[in-house]
Amino acid sequence: MSKFWSPKVRELTPYVPGEQPRKRLIKLNTNENPYPPAPGVEAVLREFPVDHLRRYPDPDSSALRAALAGELGVEPQQVFVGNGSDEILALAFQAFFCHGRPLEMPEVTYSFYPVYCRLFDVTRRALPLDAQWRVDLEAFTTDSSGAIFANPNAPTGHGHARQAIQGLLSRVKDSVVLIDEAYADFGGESAIPLVAEHDNLLVTGTFSKSRSLAGLRLGYAVGSRELIEGLERVKDSFNSYPIDSLASAVGIASLEDRQHFEACREAVITTRERTRERLESLGFQVLPSKANFLLVSHASLDAAQLFVGLRERGILVRHFNTEMLNNHLRISIGTEDEMDSLVETLESLCR
Amino acid sequence: MSKFWSPKVRELTPYVPGEQPRKRLIKLNTNENPYPPAPGVEAVLREFPVDHLRRYPDPDSSALRAALAGELGVEPQQVFVGNGSDEILALAFQAFFCHGRPLEMPEVTYSFYPVYCRLFDVTRRALPLDAQWRVDLEAFTTDSSGAIFANPNAPTGHGHARQAIQGLLSRVKDSVVLIDEAYADFGGESAIPLVAEHDNLLVTGTFSKSRSLAGLRLGYAVGSRELIEGLERVKDSFNSYPIDSLASAVGIASLEDRQHFEACREAVITTRERTRERLESLGFQVLPSKANFLLVSHASLDAAQLFVGLRERGILVRHFNTEMLNNHLRISIGTEDEMDSLVETLESLCR
Repeated sequence: MSKFWSPKVRELTPYVPGEQPRKRLIKLNTNENPYPPAPGVEAVLREFPVDHLRRYPDPDSSALRAALAGELGVEPQQVFVGNGSDEILALAFQAFFCHGRPLEMPEVTYSFYPVYCRLFDVTRRALPLDAQWRVDLEAFTTDSSGAIFANPNAPTGHGHARQAIQGLLSRVKDSVVLIDEAYADFGGESAIPLVAEHDNLLVTGTFSKSRSLAGLRLGYAVGSRELIEGLERVKDSFNSYPIDSLASAVGIASLEDRQHFEACREAVITTRERTRERLESLGFQVLPSKANFLLVSHASLDAAQLFVGLRERGILVRHFNTEMLNNHLRISIGTEDEMDSLVETLESLCR
Repeated sequence: MSKFWSPKVRELTPYVPGEQPRKRLIKLNTNENPYPPAPGVEAVLREFPVDHLRRYPDPDSSALRAALAGELGVEPQQVFVGNGSDEILALAFQAFFCHGRPLEMPEVTYSFYPVYCRLFDVTRRALPLDAQWRVDLEAFTTDSSGAIFANPNAPTGHGHARQAIQGLLSRVKDSVVLIDEAYADFGGESAIPLVAEHDNLLVTGTFSKSRSLAGLRLGYAVGSRELIEGLERVKDSFNSYPIDSLASAVGIASLEDRQHFEACREAVITTRERTRERLESLGFQVLPSKANFLLVSHASLDAAQLFVGLRERGILVRHFNTEMLNNHLRISIGTEDEMDSLVETLESLCR
């Protein structure tokens, strides 16, 4: 506490990211991809003209936006890029959700959203999940400053089909619906094709998960021209050049290799389904997941104790300390070998 | 204009960075360094283990902060890093200047500060420069939410000595004094040694200018532990991982090469003083500068016309469209050859 801090800063409860361990562990706690980035990324680093770094980057990131637009089937003017999708979410809160009405979100979703609410003085209206722990799309009202949720949702992994999202958009038309698709590439259905018909839909995505580039900090948003312009106005009042020249070049190289992208995401999906079956046979309850993680619980074993037991045996998973989630573990999907180790270790802990 | 935008977004007037031309020009408009980054930067790119990019970076950027602390003679806990010093300035506005009182700044200084005021609802109290166009340190009061200015100042180039800053800090003790030292490495005197005695002093710096890494987006701040913690609280409510793994490694390599750093900044200083003399002999009034640019005007030639004349001949400088500056040009210091071309072209335009 300091007299120099702005009053609001005293009340902030920051987002706490998953641990980044220094020693060698099987790391299944932050939904990173177990496979390396596209081979073209290495070529970019080896050949990048270092002298370019003395120049400011393109403040509009035109080349990266054009590459994303091509990949996602939209116009470059419908694409925004940021220093990770977290930065885009923060800018979107300022751009769209400060109307003095509450922002609606599921009670269980990405835990950074309530943190943004506190930073930007946005009231949060938490909507319960339905009986199957799915985001209850019927619960969103038209009396809000907007709606935000992850689809597939975190940390449950459930993903709504595009048609269900279209149903929500047919009701909520006068405020922004922000769908965070950080995990959509692992079997979810993207809402991006709906952007053409719905000028209040903003979809965010990231290079961190399905493109194995969490260390690079690159995210994007797709929406109508007026939503993208709203983001640009805030961005240009915050930081003119959020995307560095290297990140831009690496991002473009990643987008150019569709084969690598498909192979990695299919491997993650296959391993996820195999892991799910094996965990169920150990007596775990496993929520169906369209993401690169599984949310699991066990009728007779305590999640916090399992977390500690796994950690002692060199395996790091995520345990959330909230009432609703504290008997669950979120387990990121690693390689087949890593998941073998996980299952074997859980087997020994279950005995 | 869009009904979806938060009301404040409609009123924003974004910062406009200097043009990034696509065709080959002599580019003296955004204060970039004419010399390449340290040779160690190339080695980092050529050897960086690409597989590291699939992991999230260290959210605390511990290694980079430790390297900066060593270079600047402070503790790592007194150092904060950001995605360019612009991002740090934006976080500092939220952390320190939202007390409901006006923020004091010179009438002429980095033009991003008033933009932050509008984004974060901070009232600006503009203080006139003194008769020699220096920041008037006597003008700052104790009835404010804080003070901010660049030292050396932009776009004037004048830098106050450390003793003068100490005088300001002996009067202003109860609110944050933020000194933006983006240009301090070109002959200015850093206020960092004063941080030990003044818990309300925050000094920001950047890798963009003196380290030739504008394209990398890396800035830092130095201050008391409580000020750094205030920045961390806002940062952890905004974006957990603003510094990507590559930028961190490149920044550390740059810090390790003191010889390259010294040689480049000395070359810029030598060229600046030589250019100043030559411009004066062409009849220009040139403000004394401790930065990597010169602010010039001419008694009989119109600055806007000179700007156009230079641009037509392939040389880009900066012209500010404000009442106080509109008969001035800000000229970044390039290589000796680039400044030869500038002087020769101005010579022909003066005839």
